[in-house]
Amino acid sequence: MKNFSFANPVKIIFGKDTIKEIANEIPKGSKVLVTYGGGSIKKNGVFDQVSKALSGYERYEFAGIEPNPHYETCMKAARLIKEKGVDFVLAVGGGSVIDATKFIVMAACFEDGDPWQVMERKATIKKALPFGSILTLAATGSEMNSGAVITKAATQEKIAFNSPLVFPQFSVLDPTTTYTLPSKQTSNGIVDTFVHVAEQYLTHSKEDTLLQDYMAEAVLKTLIIEGPKALKDPHSYDVRANLMWASTWGLNGWIAKGVDEDWATHMIGHEITAFYGVDHGQTLAIVLPGVMEILREQKAKKIIRMGKEVFGINESSDEAAINKTIKAVEDFFESLDIKTHLSEYGLGEEAVEKISKRLNDRGWKLGECQNITGDVAKKILETRR
Amino acid sequence: MKNFSFANPVKIIFGKDTIKEIANEIPKGSKVLVTYGGGSIKKNGVFDQVSKALSGYERYEFAGIEPNPHYETCMKAARLIKEKGVDFVLAVGGGSVIDATKFIVMAACFEDGDPWQVMERKATIKKALPFGSILTLAATGSEMNSGAVITKAATQEKIAFNSPLVFPQFSVLDPTTTYTLPSKQTSNGIVDTFVHVAEQYLTHSKEDTLLQDYMAEAVLKTLIIEGPKALKDPHSYDVRANLMWASTWGLNGWIAKGVDEDWATHMIGHEITAFYGVDHGQTLAIVLPGVMEILREQKAKKIIRMGKEVFGINESSDEAAINKTIKAVEDFFESLDIKTHLSEYGLGEEAVEKISKRLNDRGWKLGECQNITGDVAKKILETRR
Repeated sequence: MKNFSFANPVKIIFGKDTIKEIANEIPKGSKVLVTYGGGSIKKNGVFDQVSKALSGYERYEFAGIEPNPHYETCMKAARLIKEKGVDFVLAVGGGSVIDATKFIVMAACFEDGDPWQVMERKATIKKALPFGSILTLAATGSEMNSGAVITKAATQEKIAFNSPLVFPQFSVLDPTTTYTLPSKQTSNGIVDTFVHVAEQYLTHSKEDTLLQDYMAEAVLKTLIIEGPKALKDPHSYDVRANLMWASTWGLNGWIAKGVDEDWATHMIGHEITAFYGVDHGQTLAIVLPGVMEILREQKAKKIIRMGKEVFGINESSDEAAINKTIKAVEDFFESLDIKTHLSEYGLGEEAVEKISKRLNDRGWKLGECQNITGDVAKKILETRR
Repeated sequence: MKNFSFANPVKIIFGKDTIKEIANEIPKGSKVLVTYGGGSIKKNGVFDQVSKALSGYERYEFAGIEPNPHYETCMKAARLIKEKGVDFVLAVGGGSVIDATKFIVMAACFEDGDPWQVMERKATIKKALPFGSILTLAATGSEMNSGAVITKAATQEKIAFNSPLVFPQFSVLDPTTTYTLPSKQTSNGIVDTFVHVAEQYLTHSKEDTLLQDYMAEAVLKTLIIEGPKALKDPHSYDVRANLMWASTWGLNGWIAKGVDEDWATHMIGHEITAFYGVDHGQTLAIVLPGVMEILREQKAKKIIRMGKEVFGINESSDEAAINKTIKAVEDFFESLDIKTHLSEYGLGEEAVEKISKRLNDRGWKLGECQNITGDVAKKILETRR
């Protein structure tokens, strides 16, 4: 096991009818900015619950945070915070709203010019406003971590940042808020969680990390059992609860401690979204099987372990076990009605070239062995045509 | 899944040669009290590493914390803190030292008479000194939770308390500190962790908590695979690391969230220790198979699940599956050289009567269904003669 140090201080408030508890968490007298997305929370009753809970506070709203949230949008919210003297932010939505809010609370306190410098690793975060979240989509784990991914629309760049200063103070996880999600969003969320775990688990396996492996498999098995049930019966409380809790554990940091991490699937997927607007979850479903195929030797031990522990695959030859496991992952994504090939999204040779070129231009070397260049990404994507 | 709210802010510093990092965690200028046990840390090099790391601090020592730490001992340390104006405590040891330190940091700030009132639920904790820990024995999980068990020698009472004010600020987990443990302590620690998980998992299973179940099984499977290896090769880093990390996860609170909890094995075991001084881990190895036997109908679903997922037991009849699983648990404890019957510790009818009577006198109703009275405890212990 690798050495590590880590703390995750996020308070989780989990369960039915828990949104009202935010009034116990936000300091009395705070000026609260509520951030949210396209307005579905106004249709499903969540906004009303939030309004009621915040009745004693001076309150502002910032709506319109888009999926793959834009830097440009976040900067508008940061300006509003300064203008109104807001001192607490409440993110209500899925990973995009929470990610955006992490950038917003940082940007509102940033005093050395353009906060985008943080994304370019040219500046560090010194301060951020406190914020909490109300999660309405099980997917990104952003509700219990200190990372976020932001897109600069002007340059089509999608980049991640991380700082302990942007851990939420609290996150409310009420599974009933996910009952009315479009099934595509439920499926995307399941794929996102699955691939988060894969990034922290399907590696070259230099480390002996038995507990982390079993915990990663715990999340994956939960997704495989509960995912299809959620699509069939979107109002099953226990299924939604298990999926919501699994998505949080997919990326709250703990299963990554002591292990190697990959993240190539995410980095390549981000480029597909940045250039072509394909949903984040969809891009991961395209890329992961390709990463498994091209890195099959490097990742052999863990792919075989995943096959056995997660999918119950037992083959006498390693090659057959790996083939079956890659197919099982692809089949699982497709069973959720998520397409796994570029052509199914109208993309082909040009996309492969464009993404490969950008990664090469940046000089990135991705993956747990830093051996996935733009050229290797090209091979990966070629298997996904 | 049951509603819950929870935060665990403990910073974990894990790995080889990490004791030196405490100087980054303890505020400069603090007056530090180092608490420890019987002095094994002076033989295995841990004390030297601590001394070196604390070279810049004004420092005091409090040695002699016993296994199943005594209230009477803790009060001496609390007096020393007041006398010297100590403002940070560093616990160096296993669960007993860390548990004692939780009582000590609370007692040192207690202003309403005798701090034992907290144990009797007649007073609440309002304040505690900050403290950190250096763990030298994988067992109790105390390093990442806010609970402790203290024994009042005068009255032979062993009682637990819990308060978010006694979370450690940080805990250093260096697996190499466990290399030189006597094998009995290694075994006791493995049994303790196993039973911690069982208390949070082997219940009546009214809740559908798939992720928590898999995570509990992750800890159990790690113990079963790594436990025997640790006894055979006490200096294997990866084995010791996996066991140490598993013991922390056995009782850091997260696998208990959303589920029902039992804790009858611990409560009955505490009485065996309080009256007869049997090691904590040994008492659990005696009691758990008896709880599984007497509560076999109530816990049927989970016992069968444990058999299948943890021990690979597949039987066509529930009865056979339950029998085999109870036997597998008993065999696992015995494979670690921990005896599982009262008679093997020289105890018999008198002990059963004495413990049963005390539980009846207290009117306790233990277990997840509050149906384990002193009379039921008697039946449980009768199966363990």
